[in-house]
Amino acid sequence: MTLYVNLAELLGARIEQGLYRPGDRLPSVRTLSLEHGVSLSTVQQAYRHLEDQGLAMPRPKSGYFVPLGRERPALPMVSRMAQRPVEISQWDQVLELISVAPGGDVMQLGRGMPDISSPTLKPLLRTLSRMGRRQQVKELSYGSLQGDPGLREQVSRLMLDSGCQVPAEDIIITTGCHEALSVAIRAICEPGDIVAVDSPSFHGVMQALKGFGMKALELPTDPLTGISLEALELALEQWPIKAIQLTPSCNNPLGYIMPDANKRALLTLAQRYDMAIIEDDVYGDLAYSYPRPRSIKSYDGDGRVLLCSSFSKTLAPGLRTGWIAPGRYQQQVLHMKYIGTGMTAQLPQLALADFIGAGHYEPHLRRMRNQYARSLEQMVDWVSRYFPPGTRVSQPKGGFMLWVELDPGFDSQRLNRLLHPHKIQVAPGSIFSAAGKYRNCLRMNYAGKPSAEIEEAVRKVGATTCALLAEHQA
Amino acid sequence: MTLYVNLAELLGARIEQGLYRPGDRLPSVRTLSLEHGVSLSTVQQAYRHLEDQGLAMPRPKSGYFVPLGRERPALPMVSRMAQRPVEISQWDQVLELISVAPGGDVMQLGRGMPDISSPTLKPLLRTLSRMGRRQQVKELSYGSLQGDPGLREQVSRLMLDSGCQVPAEDIIITTGCHEALSVAIRAICEPGDIVAVDSPSFHGVMQALKGFGMKALELPTDPLTGISLEALELALEQWPIKAIQLTPSCNNPLGYIMPDANKRALLTLAQRYDMAIIEDDVYGDLAYSYPRPRSIKSYDGDGRVLLCSSFSKTLAPGLRTGWIAPGRYQQQVLHMKYIGTGMTAQLPQLALADFIGAGHYEPHLRRMRNQYARSLEQMVDWVSRYFPPGTRVSQPKGGFMLWVELDPGFDSQRLNRLLHPHKIQVAPGSIFSAAGKYRNCLRMNYAGKPSAEIEEAVRKVGATTCALLAEHQA
Repeated sequence: MTLYVNLAELLGARIEQGLYRPGDRLPSVRTLSLEHGVSLSTVQQAYRHLEDQGLAMPRPKSGYFVPLGRERPALPMVSRMAQRPVEISQWDQVLELISVAPGGDVMQLGRGMPDISSPTLKPLLRTLSRMGRRQQVKELSYGSLQGDPGLREQVSRLMLDSGCQVPAEDIIITTGCHEALSVAIRAICEPGDIVAVDSPSFHGVMQALKGFGMKALELPTDPLTGISLEALELALEQWPIKAIQLTPSCNNPLGYIMPDANKRALLTLAQRYDMAIIEDDVYGDLAYSYPRPRSIKSYDGDGRVLLCSSFSKTLAPGLRTGWIAPGRYQQQVLHMKYIGTGMTAQLPQLALADFIGAGHYEPHLRRMRNQYARSLEQMVDWVSRYFPPGTRVSQPKGGFMLWVELDPGFDSQRLNRLLHPHKIQVAPGSIFSAAGKYRNCLRMNYAGKPSAEIEEAVRKVGATTCALLAEHQA
Repeated sequence: MTLYVNLAELLGARIEQGLYRPGDRLPSVRTLSLEHGVSLSTVQQAYRHLEDQGLAMPRPKSGYFVPLGRERPALPMVSRMAQRPVEISQWDQVLELISVAPGGDVMQLGRGMPDISSPTLKPLLRTLSRMGRRQQVKELSYGSLQGDPGLREQVSRLMLDSGCQVPAEDIIITTGCHEALSVAIRAICEPGDIVAVDSPSFHGVMQALKGFGMKALELPTDPLTGISLEALELALEQWPIKAIQLTPSCNNPLGYIMPDANKRALLTLAQRYDMAIIEDDVYGDLAYSYPRPRSIKSYDGDGRVLLCSSFSKTLAPGLRTGWIAPGRYQQQVLHMKYIGTGMTAQLPQLALADFIGAGHYEPHLRRMRNQYARSLEQMVDWVSRYFPPGTRVSQPKGGFMLWVELDPGFDSQRLNRLLHPHKIQVAPGSIFSAAGKYRNCLRMNYAGKPSAEIEEAVRKVGATTCALLAEHQA
């Protein structure tokens, strides 16, 4: 065992034993170096290791701390099996959530918006600026339908991190992950077809299924491990399920990472019942632990997985640049891509290829993962403090979304209406269900660096929740 | 009658009488000023007037000339009525056309690509550059689903030129006109529905109908006035037609402008049979005559016209920024837009709002309209010279596309295959028909300023066409 692993295990054990408590400052690098007779860099490696395990948290210029909120509230309950495939509604509520542009005076705790104020994004803005200054016209022209070859090369390289060996020619650039998911669904399904989904599930996909006339079958989903494979197998015996759509790595909204064994088992099931898998990996690169989780696609031997992703959560959503690795469905997907939007915008593609090629992507990811992991601790701490006792919260392993579950009977849509005059918005749980379940849940964004303003908003949401619950129980 | 109109009519009569022949230099402004005892600016006004009528053509630093090729080849024939609605094919040929990115070593005479090298586009590149330099983050964020309010205001203002009074809140920004057409079709039609189309018709719409499972009914179309309203009425009596999709102003590929009376009559028919009209106006701002033609939407009293357009042909296609004014279908269109791509990219929207707001759009349009009108004359002249006798060509009133019709039995796909080793590509006529008609036609782009390189390519296409025809006739 190397020196630094040895030291990390020792410190880890002390933290687990409670010698250092949540929020405590851990010994300085210098102190530990002297105490254990090892080099400064060995201590730093040990702390990096602890950080990856979620046991230590760096604060700039202050050293390392034990993460807050290690005594977490209870987890949300496992969602129940849906009785049958259903048509989707809830469009009005989704529209309400997304019709306000970010950056206004509404505190949008409900949106899937990353923090785009990090200095590690500056090289991207500089590249965009340089491309305009160069006054060349490549960025104004149509590109190829499949997307810029340079960007596809970079995406192919990035996908190695999730265990995928997908050559650039098997990747299609899309207008965000949204378009990737939309073309995947249309390439595989006809109106009336049944698609199995995790539950709660991303509202964008639900609305796509609604719009294209498909039905959703919601699977019971564990807040730590994802969909129940047993339930899926039962459903596959009962219904002609054409495809399953799920977000297995850093799930939205629950934050879990489906274990590798389950990913492999799902693929086996899909092969047995000849079902396609539409894998949303848009949060996968934001896993707090290193290395990032493997994708289902990485185990895919017969091209039945359509991996959909984008830079909207890792870099910036306004770029609207995503991709799909559609496996055996490449031709159908390319046709659907063409008839939906034609070519993808050139300028962001060229800027992103440059940004990633120059090595700016990984440092940015590392920084954001650390920031989100720290913000999560703070958000959970605030929820524990300001929400009613018994509130359940998810334990995200990546991304920047917290799922909050209240007593049955709580109405998060009513909560949003009451928050409206205070210019605060959360995402009501019901938009994450085809059948309008999860009215007693809400999703909150913790991407922003913790601030007094955010704390005040969360306090307000908590207080309003308490008032609503008291009213309900009275 | 004002002095300049008087002078213009005199000169116009001389040109019509053949005193000045195609290609001749017209008298200089100074000469005419002395000869007629009027001011220099009166002569300039007169020439501007002749230019608008297509009787004179300025060449920078050389004065005015009689446009070439005023003795035009014959027009293409009126297309025949389709027997019944059909399912669409031809995807392979479309894919072949669009899979090569412009800017490579292939002379893409077939693409719908405007000239993007004009200096009047420079302010747009400068704006894009400034936005990056500013290092603000609005352009990296999600915007509103409906699109940037500033850009919608500008689009609303521009639409006044086509006689439309559509407020900004009734406009939805899209990822190019392609997405506008796609969401329009999906908002109105179900799989199996029948959509009437002009014929030849834009291949992007045909492919969308194919992909979404609709059938196309091709209407006989006159190369000067557009679809036959009599044929449409007969079809409406016979078939349950849900919508008609057409490009009435500077049609692609035929270039005609449907007369205002026909536009009004079409609307009356649509009202009588309760049919929606999907109007593609993407070339409308590029009409060679001033003022630009009115849109069908401008006569729309009950919101049944969905006007689709973009800046892809007027400014630059790589921006992928278009819009739809969906009338009474606003809610359905917004939902279809959401499930297709979510938000539209922010950066191009903000840059375009700035570019148009600063008054850069109209001068650019004026320049491009003049350039395309001049390039048209040159292209027709080349076709007359290098193509077989009896070749028929369209008489475009705007845009930058020429439709060329050869003897029945000519095979433009074979032509393309023979041109392939020479790195020249035209658009085969069959992709503009649901049923694969127009194999004996091709579309050629004349957006680029006439050059020896383009002439050589057209000469090659003409020579290969001659050889193919001779072979066919032997």
